Amino acid sequence: MVSLDRPIKFEDVDAANIVFFARFLNYAHEAMERFFAPLDGGYAGLILERRIGLPAVRVEADYAAPVRYGQALRIETSVVRIGRRSATLRYRMHRAHDGVLSAELRHTVVTTDLVQLVSVPMPEDVRALLGAHLELEQAPSSAGQPA
Amino acid sequence: MVSLDRPIKFEDVDAANIVFFARFLNYAHEAMERFFAPLDGGYAGLILERRIGLPAVRVEADYAAPVRYGQALRIETSVVRIGRRSATLRYRMHRAHDGVLSAELRHTVVTTDLVQLVSVPMPEDVRALLGAHLELEQAPSSAGQPA
Amino acid sequence: MVSLDRPIKFEDVDAANIVFFARFLNYAHEAMERFFAPLDGGYAGLILERRIGLPAVRVEADYAAPVRYGQALRIETSVVRIGRRSATLRYRMHRAHDGVLSAELRHTVVTTDLVQLVSVPMPEDVRALLGAHLELEQAPSSAGQPA
Amino acid sequence: MVSLDRPIKFEDVDAANIVFFARFLNYAHEAMERFFAPLDGGYAGLILERRIGLPAVRVEADYAAPVRYGQALRIETSVVRIGRRSATLRYRMHRAHDGVLSAELRHTVVTTDLVQLVSVPMPEDVRALLGAHLELEQAPSSAGQPA
Repeated sequence: MVSLDRPIKFEDVDAANIVFFARFLNYAHEAMERFFAPLDGGYAGLILERRIGLPAVRVEADYAAPVRYGQALRIETSVVRIGRRSATLRYRMHRAHDGVLSAELRHTVVTTDLVQLVSVPMPEDVRALLGAHLELEQAPSSAGQPA
Repeated sequence: MVSLDRPIKFEDVDAANIVFFARFLNYAHEAMERFFAPLDGGYAGLILERRIGLPAVRVEADYAAPVRYGQALRIETSVVRIGRRSATLRYRMHRAHDGVLSAELRHTVVTTDLVQLVSVPMPEDVRALLGAHLELEQAPSSAGQPA
Repeated sequence: MVSLDRPIKFEDVDAANIVFFARFLNYAHEAMERFFAPLDGGYAGLILERRIGLPAVRVEADYAAPVRYGQALRIETSVVRIGRRSATLRYRMHRAHDGVLSAELRHTVVTTDLVQLVSVPMPEDVRALLGAHLELEQAPSSAGQPA
Repeated sequence: MVSLDRPIKFEDVDAANIVFFARFLNYAHEAMERFFAPLDGGYAGLILERRIGLPAVRVEADYAAPVRYGQALRIETSVVRIGRRSATLRYRMHRAHDGVLSAELRHTVVTTDLVQLVSVPMPEDVRALLGAHLELEQAPSSAGQPA
């Protein structure tokens, strides 16, 4: 599990004065960039030098409690599935001041050649990093997962 | 079904040169604002005058094909579930130039008192508008849905 | 002068509940994209096919009155200076509901080869479009302008 | 002078693959939030508890060199003018990897009652913090400044 503290910015809220629901995906991406920082060249090196990216094929976001300007989120990133060309990251975002879960996201990404925009086998260093943070979940029922 | 054409903006793409995955939720919200425009005062009137909002409790996004600057999305908004205090909207986003499905989102919102941040029974005009665009889906299996 | 009506989006405001100051530059860019729409292929064609862009070298923004969610801006784009490789666009953004000037921006851009990131002579079609909307201003004093 | 290191995020670039010009104002605001962090309750406390904000009345941005994903900016915030109800902050943003100046912004803000949206005399703690980082500039010529 990799942790990131993320203060809410002045501009992150919406006209209802709570963080806009789309921003949690921005936060998730920041957490993913942090997660992959140990790669040689970091996430940016993967994208810019090796031209391999991790576009999303699916996101599930559950919003549990609102968060506001002046607060912060503690984002815990782990991995719940690793496939041949894809993986699912999970982000648990708790409010720093009271520990309440604000949102939980699952983010399935596919290792992709950014020049051709086709999937490629997962690079070994990416797989190793994902594997180091794999947290298998209790299957609540038999639910089919994409391979 | 309510349709919205949305050109991709110069700033909507990311360093992989395709629209950033979080932006599709921004697009969905724009489509929802368009969907609720027939309300008296529009969506803004609901938020600002009646102080009722529609915060998300869950989003599912499936990304099928990338979209780029210079292209546009045709967003078709419909409703797949209406509960007592919640509803699920569905957004199908096709690329305008070739008709390919780029993303499909499901967005479950709860009618909420924005002052107290507690759920409230769905206002009748909101329910009527949702009902006018209800498109029941074939249940692919028995899947429990939140009430 | 080219006009664009731009409703304020739910997410455009900040924690002070008025449109965030940076968003006016986003609006200006949208207005510029609209301004250059008559080019063959539009602004996107200029960027993606001809690989010529218009990066900013200077922006001046004067904020006169706040604007909020539920309101809209009428953005009037004109040109106040055309040089050999640069031009200055002016955006006057009035609130649609009361006509009050909300912000006025000046945006100096340089015609740039996006591959090499070096300035290039202004293409003739770009120059012609700018010239069609040139509105010379009264010089309030002798103020030097970049060539 | 207060310093902030700001990595460029994956989504900060535009279709020309350089940081979008509006983002520099977002960065400036982040740097301002950092600047005012020593206030009791930080900038958020000023906004949310004391209901005093610092809306911009003018921004000048000079863009000197592009910055890209994978790079970072070192933002140096100082103060170049303090008035009775307004002040001008200056942000010098250098690229971390080569020290090249990417952008310099001047940001004039007015201490404002956020409930009434009218200017108020500058609070003493705000004035003291600004004063601690005042860096008078050489006047290149006689240029009138708003009081």
